[in-house]
Amino acid sequence: MQNRNTTAAGGEPAGTPLSGDALEAVLVAELGDALVTRAADIDPRHFTAYNEPAGARPRALVRPRSVDDVSRTLALCARLGQAVVPQGGLTGLARGAVALGGEVVLSMERFTGVDALDAAAGTMTVRAGTPLQTVQEAAEAAGFTFGVDLGARGSCQIGGMLATNAGGTRAIRYGMMREQVLGLEAVLADGTVVSSMNRMLKNNAGYDLKQLFIGSEGTLGVVTRAVLRLHPLLAAPATALCRVRDYDAVIALWNRVRTLPEVVSFEAMWPAFYDYVARRTPGVSAPFVGDDGFAVLIECATSAPGGDAHQALETGLAAGIEAGLVEDAVLATSERQARDLWTLREGLAIDALPHLVNFDVSLPTGELGVFAERCEAALRMQWPDAVCLFFGHVGDGNVHIGVSLAGISDADADALDHCVYAVVRDMGGSVSAEHGIGVLKRPYLAHTRSDAEIGLMRRLKAALDPGGILNPGKVL
Amino acid sequence: MQNRNTTAAGGEPAGTPLSGDALEAVLVAELGDALVTRAADIDPRHFTAYNEPAGARPRALVRPRSVDDVSRTLALCARLGQAVVPQGGLTGLARGAVALGGEVVLSMERFTGVDALDAAAGTMTVRAGTPLQTVQEAAEAAGFTFGVDLGARGSCQIGGMLATNAGGTRAIRYGMMREQVLGLEAVLADGTVVSSMNRMLKNNAGYDLKQLFIGSEGTLGVVTRAVLRLHPLLAAPATALCRVRDYDAVIALWNRVRTLPEVVSFEAMWPAFYDYVARRTPGVSAPFVGDDGFAVLIECATSAPGGDAHQALETGLAAGIEAGLVEDAVLATSERQARDLWTLREGLAIDALPHLVNFDVSLPTGELGVFAERCEAALRMQWPDAVCLFFGHVGDGNVHIGVSLAGISDADADALDHCVYAVVRDMGGSVSAEHGIGVLKRPYLAHTRSDAEIGLMRRLKAALDPGGILNPGKVL
Repeated sequence: MQNRNTTAAGGEPAGTPLSGDALEAVLVAELGDALVTRAADIDPRHFTAYNEPAGARPRALVRPRSVDDVSRTLALCARLGQAVVPQGGLTGLARGAVALGGEVVLSMERFTGVDALDAAAGTMTVRAGTPLQTVQEAAEAAGFTFGVDLGARGSCQIGGMLATNAGGTRAIRYGMMREQVLGLEAVLADGTVVSSMNRMLKNNAGYDLKQLFIGSEGTLGVVTRAVLRLHPLLAAPATALCRVRDYDAVIALWNRVRTLPEVVSFEAMWPAFYDYVARRTPGVSAPFVGDDGFAVLIECATSAPGGDAHQALETGLAAGIEAGLVEDAVLATSERQARDLWTLREGLAIDALPHLVNFDVSLPTGELGVFAERCEAALRMQWPDAVCLFFGHVGDGNVHIGVSLAGISDADADALDHCVYAVVRDMGGSVSAEHGIGVLKRPYLAHTRSDAEIGLMRRLKAALDPGGILNPGKVL
Repeated sequence: MQNRNTTAAGGEPAGTPLSGDALEAVLVAELGDALVTRAADIDPRHFTAYNEPAGARPRALVRPRSVDDVSRTLALCARLGQAVVPQGGLTGLARGAVALGGEVVLSMERFTGVDALDAAAGTMTVRAGTPLQTVQEAAEAAGFTFGVDLGARGSCQIGGMLATNAGGTRAIRYGMMREQVLGLEAVLADGTVVSSMNRMLKNNAGYDLKQLFIGSEGTLGVVTRAVLRLHPLLAAPATALCRVRDYDAVIALWNRVRTLPEVVSFEAMWPAFYDYVARRTPGVSAPFVGDDGFAVLIECATSAPGGDAHQALETGLAAGIEAGLVEDAVLATSERQARDLWTLREGLAIDALPHLVNFDVSLPTGELGVFAERCEAALRMQWPDAVCLFFGHVGDGNVHIGVSLAGISDADADALDHCVYAVVRDMGGSVSAEHGIGVLKRPYLAHTRSDAEIGLMRRLKAALDPGGILNPGKVL
């Protein structure tokens, strides 16, 4: 599958008027040797998406150390008509941060660090290349919690997380990246620095420009810095795994659990997914076995002095048991046990399945059960032996699907996409919950967005990047 | 003051090529008699901003009953080059929803009602003209809470609240209007209906177009419908008023109270404001008297079954008393008493002050104390007898200021604006926290936003409304 959709159908990168040698010479001359890596010297990690073989080698790699470096790079590339791919930690799954062929890659990995932390206001100013984990640790050291957490915390970067509006496991409590941002600085395609580094929760002086750059995957500007809001520090969480009969019971349980102000995560594993990871996750002894029910992971935590997240979680579970929704439940009694429950849910074990194709879609929470049934039925109609594993955040309508087919071809993989996204379209869902459109989902954007919406997106793109140099062939 | 800034300096409305009679004839012919009110017949409330004398009479009033009516109206006005002012409940304080002269007013007051409520997903689909209170009551009837509340709940409309990104007293818990919106439908200047009625918490399929229309005060499109997210129903709140020595103690108390997951509001009254409303609010017996300290109103509420907001609030207050921050505190023991505490904070009593000018600004929470001191000193330097009353939401950095000057002239009023906004600018704050820019703050937009930001705003305006027909002379 690795070569699917890697050429930009209907949205070619901007022109590349200079030869490779000439381009390198101009970049080095104008930006300096320290910033520019020539094509031949680029480490393959800069052209390799997560979990995939190496892709197209960029024409050059630029690694700025300042906002001014970013500005000068973009102004130069705009003048040359040279396409640019902004790049963060490369942990997305839509292939939005790798070159398609002919681009310069602009990696933010050297522009890192926390510039400021305002404890009275609960805000932190960070540079785009800062890894999530650094932000989380700096927040905790000052007595705060950062609102977004996800598995790739050690390598994903704040800039990339903003560009894709990353989600993760705490969106029901704190929202996605968009909700964590008070201020943002971005550089436009022509090199203009637009600094909107607001530090207030309430500010309605003119258009909220930061929204343009959040979730637009580097196609409208390059995020350089952000003012992030912080939340009061959470004490150690309480984590439980429950056995629940069917999806209706999952929803009924969610409607009880969501009333607890302490709830941070509510994650569901469909029966076949749970059965698979319970049997195949090395080093983890699963609390239940078999595929005769859903498994729900619930995490509660509180910042209140003297607050008791375990008490809250037990209250929620007791209500679920009393209502006949929870058939069995295990409360983690150690950090290690909680970690094990999360390891099951993260489901890395399914990566061992042959020819795995991953999906990340969303629907209204109440409709995910029917969606999974329809989706599996549609897949089985064409591929009776397909393994279909559903799991996800559920509380926010986001479900992931792992589909494994023996001996799958590129054509099969495209047909799989067609099949899954057609069900999403027919039920009014979204083809991308938290990984963006990138390249891989570009053919399916119209499944989720109308002609009028796509027309308006194109109008924005033309207004902000008239030369089409920013991440061409992505999203639109 | 009523005539300040009512002409559009530097941003004239689009051309008005038809005479009044001809315009009325075309509007009636194309839109129908039922939709159009001729200039002479327009009720003055449609050209009167809150708390002000009547302004410019519009050339016509159009009151659509459907999205299609809005689309046809805008398409027609675009063809005619006729400026349009979208209008909600007219409760804003920046004069953004009234005509400046020569416009047609598009009032959404007939396009009202709740279209759908999805209890499993916790979402509600509403029409733009629906009053906030209707939304709140529909949410509560279904077992939910709507996240925004404010004093004008009976008359403000959801569309106007979205267009201004309204805030209110619960932003520390739930955010402003922007955070309540999952999906939005808007009509562009050319009549194109852009329907982005997403129903999921997580959806990252392409640009998040709804953000363009939230907080842009009707200058980029007219909001017609929205999918709002709902929160679990809160039980009866617990409300307290505390006496606190100085602003440092207010901040120290806030840093303790914010850790309580139950906190909904944290509002501060500066000494002179509190002293005034405590003595002058009819029918309310204030728990403390005198101007020798700040008064802080704290409200807690919880959705947890069996949860106890009073217990939480008492815990927070006890911590504040133990730390020597709270000098005195009163917990409301009845709904009536809680209402009285809110009445003090809402401070309608200060409207009786002669020649009152209101300000709505924001700064990082920790800096509001110094801001108030500098602002008052700057005002007193020019007007030694000025009455300066500070109060606000504090937890989200939003402070309101009431300034009263005996025998103030229009020139004085402009000088007052200059004086207050200069302090805001020098301290890096925002000239508008929650009421937008409208007309009144347009001269001060550059106090808060850079040339690059305003340039990008203009670029967006030109891309979305090339004819400049939407709310000309507002914001930019």
